[in-house]
Amino acid sequence: MSCVVAVVGATGLVGREMLRTLQLRRFPASRVVALASARSAGSLVPYGDAAIEVRQATPERFAGVDIALFSAGKAAARELAPQAAARGAVVIDNSSAWRMDPEVPLVVPEVNPADGRRRPKGIIANPNCSTIQMVVALKPIHNLARIEHIVVSTYQAASGKGYAAVQELHAQERALVEGRAIEHRVLPGRLAQNLLMDWPAGTGGYSEEELKMVGETRKIMGDERIGVSPTTVRVPVATGHSEALHVRCARPVSAAEAVAALRGAPGVRLDERPYEPGAHPQPVHCVGEDWVYVGRVRDDLAVPGAINLWVVADNLRKGAALNAVQIAELVLGEV
Amino acid sequence: MSCVVAVVGATGLVGREMLRTLQLRRFPASRVVALASARSAGSLVPYGDAAIEVRQATPERFAGVDIALFSAGKAAARELAPQAAARGAVVIDNSSAWRMDPEVPLVVPEVNPADGRRRPKGIIANPNCSTIQMVVALKPIHNLARIEHIVVSTYQAASGKGYAAVQELHAQERALVEGRAIEHRVLPGRLAQNLLMDWPAGTGGYSEEELKMVGETRKIMGDERIGVSPTTVRVPVATGHSEALHVRCARPVSAAEAVAALRGAPGVRLDERPYEPGAHPQPVHCVGEDWVYVGRVRDDLAVPGAINLWVVADNLRKGAALNAVQIAELVLGEV
Repeated sequence: MSCVVAVVGATGLVGREMLRTLQLRRFPASRVVALASARSAGSLVPYGDAAIEVRQATPERFAGVDIALFSAGKAAARELAPQAAARGAVVIDNSSAWRMDPEVPLVVPEVNPADGRRRPKGIIANPNCSTIQMVVALKPIHNLARIEHIVVSTYQAASGKGYAAVQELHAQERALVEGRAIEHRVLPGRLAQNLLMDWPAGTGGYSEEELKMVGETRKIMGDERIGVSPTTVRVPVATGHSEALHVRCARPVSAAEAVAALRGAPGVRLDERPYEPGAHPQPVHCVGEDWVYVGRVRDDLAVPGAINLWVVADNLRKGAALNAVQIAELVLGEV
Repeated sequence: MSCVVAVVGATGLVGREMLRTLQLRRFPASRVVALASARSAGSLVPYGDAAIEVRQATPERFAGVDIALFSAGKAAARELAPQAAARGAVVIDNSSAWRMDPEVPLVVPEVNPADGRRRPKGIIANPNCSTIQMVVALKPIHNLARIEHIVVSTYQAASGKGYAAVQELHAQERALVEGRAIEHRVLPGRLAQNLLMDWPAGTGGYSEEELKMVGETRKIMGDERIGVSPTTVRVPVATGHSEALHVRCARPVSAAEAVAALRGAPGVRLDERPYEPGAHPQPVHCVGEDWVYVGRVRDDLAVPGAINLWVVADNLRKGAALNAVQIAELVLGEV
């Protein structure tokens, strides 16, 4: 079967990772089209050993495209995704534009692959990075005993905010090392040797990122009863999101039971080392890896039958590009 | 009244901060004696505009000392604190050696000042840094509605592990900026642009640091019923510990109620700004400050009547030196 794939937002961090992932997974594309804003048109992006020229993303470009992977932000997705879908492309969008639309499935292939089949708008949404790794880690436990409540604190990397944020973190660290003043433009302050909550405000004193973790988790898990208590924090790490989770189920679950459920679970790499200094999943070890690393699964000290765990993944890979390409593979497999 | 103060471990990060804090608070010491291991004897440490010569900490040095502030580690505290107490000094020890001894009070002056009065061993223990800032922030809420359960995720600074860890973080960041290999000796791995759990192992898959937060919180609050579910994490920050807290009380508590209780609470600086990017307590803003900064107090999204908050403090100040000097002030005030 011939399959033309477009990557929209091809010059961004996630767009480039999408191109890399298509190659790495030997996605059977007969042709790959790189699209971006007018500003980036004419530039080159790597695809395997070759380089493809970036074209401006206009509605007409989607004629003949079978699958369009979007990572071009919310505004572009709102405008262009329906245009691409109208021309017959299946759109897989990485922005938050369509995620909570009841007619748009929100898919993590390890968790709810079947949801992607029904897509009346021709659009499938790729969830938020911090949500993806959480639901991959928690799905086996949800299957085991139905999760009722999750308290999650995140330790999120700069690359979740894009290339400019990573560059700014590097510039700030360089300034710190060289004793110069620390400046910021993309971030709302200093991230080097500091912590920031840099997401737009949502409601009730929560950030949008925190609210995403609530609504998206319920939608992906297909269970509106799951309660999520989130705190999202940016840490001075370039790539690799980490999360501390406290989980209660409808019945008591022991760490041993959870470990048994997580062993060999789809997408999960379980770290069964007993806790020792440094013996836990670390962001630097997860960069460029596809797995969701789960470690420090332990019985809670306060609530009998609750468990705690530590989850780390490459936010550009499983948190974005890989998950999108996996959705594309599902779409391809339908035929 | 004449009061001779000894600082034991005077050359360490916390010891130096103790000397600085004694000066800043105009502690009425008639004389300050700087003690340390044999290795540091003869060196000079700053005290106000002067410098004092460091002497070797031997039992005999405590003759005539009224108050001995210890920050010399667990082994030295085990050995020397009773010797100092036997010679009439009130020992205020920053290590974990004596904290859980039933005959040693564990004191945070804003929380349980009266506990310090009964000290049959002549020793008062200074709590763990991450515990101090948590109980200062939570005491007003405990008074309001009796806290039953705390889920805490920490974002702890390198200085909590001492001077060598801060130097190693700086060296790693410099290596990263300059493209050299990253080395580690004090830390169990790379902390620059990474996260580490570097505390010794405790029991049940928990680190010692996590277990301290459980036992010490109960002892300071004087309530063995408080449940604590901790995850402690080291972040690439030099100074300033942060904590994400999820709190349930014996009765429902609203964020508005909690805010009213925290406003003007002892030791607390309440950040009442509504959430916006960057509008929250940050480690870099807390360095060198005495306050425990509390922000982002918000109603929980999952559990009615639970609240979430964000707590930041200078771990060397309120987390160590300041708390010890405040205990010394309490002791002085008894006379």
